[in-house]
Amino acid sequence: MATPELKAELTRERRGVDRTLRRLLRSEKGIPDRLRQAMGHSLLGPGKRLRPLLLLWTFDAVTARRRTTPVDRDQAVEIAGALEMLHCYSLIHDDLPAMDDDVLRRGLPTCHVAFDEATAILAGDGLQALAFAICARRGGSKAAALVELVAAAVGPAGMVGGQQLDLDAEGTAVTAATVARIHRGKTARLLAASLTAGALLGGGRPEVLKRVHDAGMDLGLAFQGADDLLDITATTAQLGKSAGKDQESDKATWVKIEGLAKARARTRRYGRRGLATLDEALPPGAAAGRLVALAGMMWNRDR
Amino acid sequence: MATPELKAELTRERRGVDRTLRRLLRSEKGIPDRLRQAMGHSLLGPGKRLRPLLLLWTFDAVTARRRTTPVDRDQAVEIAGALEMLHCYSLIHDDLPAMDDDVLRRGLPTCHVAFDEATAILAGDGLQALAFAICARRGGSKAAALVELVAAAVGPAGMVGGQQLDLDAEGTAVTAATVARIHRGKTARLLAASLTAGALLGGGRPEVLKRVHDAGMDLGLAFQGADDLLDITATTAQLGKSAGKDQESDKATWVKIEGLAKARARTRRYGRRGLATLDEALPPGAAAGRLVALAGMMWNRDR
Repeated sequence: MATPELKAELTRERRGVDRTLRRLLRSEKGIPDRLRQAMGHSLLGPGKRLRPLLLLWTFDAVTARRRTTPVDRDQAVEIAGALEMLHCYSLIHDDLPAMDDDVLRRGLPTCHVAFDEATAILAGDGLQALAFAICARRGGSKAAALVELVAAAVGPAGMVGGQQLDLDAEGTAVTAATVARIHRGKTARLLAASLTAGALLGGGRPEVLKRVHDAGMDLGLAFQGADDLLDITATTAQLGKSAGKDQESDKATWVKIEGLAKARARTRRYGRRGLATLDEALPPGAAAGRLVALAGMMWNRDR
Repeated sequence: MATPELKAELTRERRGVDRTLRRLLRSEKGIPDRLRQAMGHSLLGPGKRLRPLLLLWTFDAVTARRRTTPVDRDQAVEIAGALEMLHCYSLIHDDLPAMDDDVLRRGLPTCHVAFDEATAILAGDGLQALAFAICARRGGSKAAALVELVAAAVGPAGMVGGQQLDLDAEGTAVTAATVARIHRGKTARLLAASLTAGALLGGGRPEVLKRVHDAGMDLGLAFQGADDLLDITATTAQLGKSAGKDQESDKATWVKIEGLAKARARTRRYGRRGLATLDEALPPGAAAGRLVALAGMMWNRDR
């Protein structure tokens, strides 16, 4: 699916994000050693860096024809790192024994296994606060709007709410609409906010922000749909996290309700609609093309 | 210590904060029922509302002679509520079995006892995100500075870091300086940020913000010193939380290291210095007098 050129660009961009994450964590003064190690363990391990990439490539697509932008790209990279911190905090807390009770993440022991439960809870809490500090510090004239956008996406009506619905639904009979509500909160909101933040920081107009957000919600549903399919069809080694967990804990997924074929078709439907919306929202050009290619990879996945 | 007039003002102000908290939680759309109940259980129970009061009365003291202020008092009250949410989230997480493992808080079952551990973790996570959303939404021209101030105070080099140091210190031999570092992070930073946020939102100059912050750090240490003394000298019924917990889990406190008399003298020393700094920082008047009286009550405590 991805051309060699795109793969090379992805690798280069990911490395830049990784460097920024290391620098951001290292440069924060006064973090106790054990807490910093735990945050670093989960944040600096291997990862797709999907949310940072979506932010940055949307930023690039929106700013391709502009001379001045609300923030420069260095600021955008740090804010992209902040979104990765939020994603990482949610993984640390989701993996806790009281939640999904998982021991493997991104091919490494989960945070509470490598450290302990208390430290893992605090590492997650600390990453959330640090992410908002960075958004406020580096968001320039868009800082307040950025924090509001991102906080709503990860808050009790967004990511945290989705996780709650997911836990509440375990072992119960759910409808496809309930699964959609869970996936929108748990996954799509932060992915959509990543795209939207890129457009916001690039100076995109309100209607562009809205369309990009809509695209991100569809792409987020497609991404989660693909994730649920992979939980069935891929191995633990391929995933870097425990495979077959959804079935084991009787998670609410479309696969469970509709079967593999229908779930696959549904994922494709969301994915295609998201791609079309995204394509229309952006000024045509190389930067937009690269972003659309990345968005396609979100649901045509092998891991 | 407190005059009947001051007590009446405290009660009135607390009721206003409580009304705001109820409204803020109720008006957030899309929060799953169980999560909203868990957040409400911990947030809307009885509480001193110390951080909101400090913010609001500092705001009043700083704005007493101004015609225009960066935000109006209605906005300040909502931001005061956001600080209470942050405090409340920290209590929910601190009480978890993996942390301090407490079953009683403010005279009620702790969140994970009333609900379950996963819901309690998420309720805390959600309150943190919601607090930053409110700061960004209502902070007007000071929103970015406010989020940065508050996120630093509760982040890995602040409140979360203090909690980590506190857990790391349990059962180990510590110095009085280590206890001070723990208390600064765990308690004083958010209290100092509450005062500083009030001054910031009221349009206080940088030197006023700095002095108020210094005062808040000293008052915060005195507050925590008094808290540790009460853990020894008061009953569970008086405290509304389990008494004697510090000794039981061998917590790092000045009482443990220095004994009751020296710990009491130390608390008084911090408290007096904090009061003097605060008094000097503010324009004299009824509003400043009321704030200083409240600051005195922080360490001359009966609960």
